[in-house]
Amino acid sequence: MLATVPVRVPRAIREQQMLDAAVSVFARSGYVTASMEDVAAQAGITKPMVYAYLGTKEELFSACLRREGTRLMEALVEVVRPELAAEQQLWQGLRAFYGFVAAHRDGWDVLYRQGRALAPFAAQIDGMRARMVEVVGGMLGRAVQARGRVPDADDVEAMAYAFVGAAESVADWLIDHQEIAADRAASRMMSAVWLGAESLLRGEIWRPSGVD
Amino acid sequence: MLATVPVRVPRAIREQQMLDAAVSVFARSGYVTASMEDVAAQAGITKPMVYAYLGTKEELFSACLRREGTRLMEALVEVVRPELAAEQQLWQGLRAFYGFVAAHRDGWDVLYRQGRALAPFAAQIDGMRARMVEVVGGMLGRAVQARGRVPDADDVEAMAYAFVGAAESVADWLIDHQEIAADRAASRMMSAVWLGAESLLRGEIWRPSGVD
Repeated sequence: MLATVPVRVPRAIREQQMLDAAVSVFARSGYVTASMEDVAAQAGITKPMVYAYLGTKEELFSACLRREGTRLMEALVEVVRPELAAEQQLWQGLRAFYGFVAAHRDGWDVLYRQGRALAPFAAQIDGMRARMVEVVGGMLGRAVQARGRVPDADDVEAMAYAFVGAAESVADWLIDHQEIAADRAASRMMSAVWLGAESLLRGEIWRPSGVD
Repeated sequence: MLATVPVRVPRAIREQQMLDAAVSVFARSGYVTASMEDVAAQAGITKPMVYAYLGTKEELFSACLRREGTRLMEALVEVVRPELAAEQQLWQGLRAFYGFVAAHRDGWDVLYRQGRALAPFAAQIDGMRARMVEVVGGMLGRAVQARGRVPDADDVEAMAYAFVGAAESVADWLIDHQEIAADRAASRMMSAVWLGAESLLRGEIWRPSGVD
């Protein structure tokens, strides 16, 4: 068996290869039916080696989630630069988000679709979502301040929740429509929420007067 | 034991009482740790009777989901009347939605928060979400047609996904902020998405020109 293992591969690279294999196997077979044998076979190594590097199947799935989440965050941070106007920050952030989803369909499938329906990982995903809400809320709050207004914390937070929920939901839509390009998904998300966000920046909140 | 069972309660009413008890127990203890004994005790009946009426714990949870989902749909259908303008349909629908969530926090907790993180029920919840997307998309599509335009199916569908995802996410926010009234959540959702929806009705889709 040892002959099949190229021993001089550094640990960090080996781990990334195992995670690549695991994401692909989890996406293909589903968490419950995926086996550590499948992951080992896909990575071209032995099963004990997978256990030694990344632990149990649960720990392996959790490590996949962490890596995919980190990759997504890095893709966002790279383009949502603080010197950009709010509209450009949102647009570039959404392009990067849907670009990531479209380019790592397996990863997104593992990250969200399966993970959120598996009790041991739901909390991990809720944590990622909470960080995303914080990031979007922080960005909106600073944009309100940049226009010389004091942001209403509840208005900003509710908008951030709406934004993140809408973005996730449109990502589900994108996954099911392989013919849709990432940028089309991003511009449709902007259509859905940009005018609302802009109106928050102007201090104009929708009120029911006249239609109640 | 039989002495504790009022035998003349009609089956339909008895079932509703069991579902009330089950929603309350699932919300308090969580699906995994909740026991059929707890549900029976809460309903004031024997455990075999719960099994006889509503089957296993999995079937019982599934019946809770169905009932809470049906209640929510009924609350929406009652107020989203087709003769109303789109803005009023959305506003009334959101008020009814958040009114339901605020009035049945246990039910919403069971319906969405727990159910979506439990593999056997995730498909059932995805089905409910898909119906909701269809309903919202149908409403938006008809509103576009009412203004003499041919709706772009992808634009309408993406907007419906964004809308439903945002509405769910704001419901999570509402559950965690017991001091926020249902109507405040509804008007914040309108702030986030109404201007975008209105611009879809006018045939104006956000495009990246100038900010790309």
